[in-house]
Amino acid sequence: MVRQERAIRTRRAILNAAASVFDERGYEAATIGEVLTRAGVTKGALYFHFPSKQALAEGVLAEQFSGFVLAPRASKLQELVDMGLALAYRMRRNPVVSASARLSLGQEMGVIFGTWTITTWLEATEKVLREAREQGELLPHVDPAESAWVFSAAWTGVQVYSHTLAGREDLERRVSALFEHLLPSIAVPAVLGKLVTDPARAAEVAAEGERLAAEAGELGDLDEVAAPA
Amino acid sequence: MVRQERAIRTRRAILNAAASVFDERGYEAATIGEVLTRAGVTKGALYFHFPSKQALAEGVLAEQFSGFVLAPRASKLQELVDMGLALAYRMRRNPVVSASARLSLGQEMGVIFGTWTITTWLEATEKVLREAREQGELLPHVDPAESAWVFSAAWTGVQVYSHTLAGREDLERRVSALFEHLLPSIAVPAVLGKLVTDPARAAEVAAEGERLAAEAGELGDLDEVAAPA
Repeated sequence: MVRQERAIRTRRAILNAAASVFDERGYEAATIGEVLTRAGVTKGALYFHFPSKQALAEGVLAEQFSGFVLAPRASKLQELVDMGLALAYRMRRNPVVSASARLSLGQEMGVIFGTWTITTWLEATEKVLREAREQGELLPHVDPAESAWVFSAAWTGVQVYSHTLAGREDLERRVSALFEHLLPSIAVPAVLGKLVTDPARAAEVAAEGERLAAEAGELGDLDEVAAPA
Repeated sequence: MVRQERAIRTRRAILNAAASVFDERGYEAATIGEVLTRAGVTKGALYFHFPSKQALAEGVLAEQFSGFVLAPRASKLQELVDMGLALAYRMRRNPVVSASARLSLGQEMGVIFGTWTITTWLEATEKVLREAREQGELLPHVDPAESAWVFSAAWTGVQVYSHTLAGREDLERRVSALFEHLLPSIAVPAVLGKLVTDPARAAEVAAEGERLAAEAGELGDLDEVAAPA
């Protein structure tokens, strides 16, 4: 059991180190040697968990979805806003999230990794919009699949601009402005008036979601290490 | 005069060849040798116009703004829509425009080329929104600078998604959907009802703008070659 906990910690240390290297250098220029140095693990330990650079990058991409759990909101459109604000906050502070954006959006990256990270975001967005529809939060003409595509793509463009022009310093503020521009075309007025898009909300939503993920992760890890005796 | 016309044609052939190479391979992997082969010009001719790979890329980036002139519209918001639709159409068909997107948006590209192509688009968008404000087309709360940032960034995200997920096949349709989502939050109702965002409009606007640019270019070239006798 102690050994398995250590393996989990080693795996996390490797993923965090790999994320910081991919984030700074990009996929092509990243080397396993630099990941080893930053993680402070042996080559054998790294290759036990990740047999190649591509496996390392895929591990980072998968990890972006495991560090955050959004508690359901009464308003599903508020849930959509909170997803977008929390992601903005986390992208500025968490190398796994930031590296995942870089790994997903490079022009060659779709060839190497496929497009599953983008479609995962699209599906999550469409799901919450379908729930909003069921609750009567959407205007009648709205197509949840089309709006999910527009919201998700536009969010990504805001991230790219903020990153390129301002080193992401204004990311939460720009995401907030994006929601202010998009929501009036999909939300019924009674819901629209109650939605909170304030950028200051990003930090608290991110903290709440990371706490929930950590709690779920502890339970998950216990399951994971409960190997047959 | 004949010699100067030939120089202009050679320069254009080099830029078109360079654009197709940058578009397919990206900046790092592109080689001047491949540009020479595709352009069918001598090394001396290429280096006369562009002394380095970076100069070639900067030439391509500058050229994206010279192939299209949008005739003023009575509605400045229609002008904004037409800019976005025509750019979508041209990005699918013109290697100079497509390569410029790739050169502008790569994560290292800001370091190599600066951010002037993004700020040029931002300024053009803000200008047309300020004109829309003067004409009474905007809702009172709208901040032209902030909306220009959101529109321009969101357009870019739509381009990235369409490129990654669909090889840009749906780009005009997605840009049209983006405008449908964004315009209700900035346009006064009387203007909103008259705006045409139909993706089928993209082709005609692009053709009109390229014809106007070609006419202006012929005049410009004549000026350019009218060297002192």
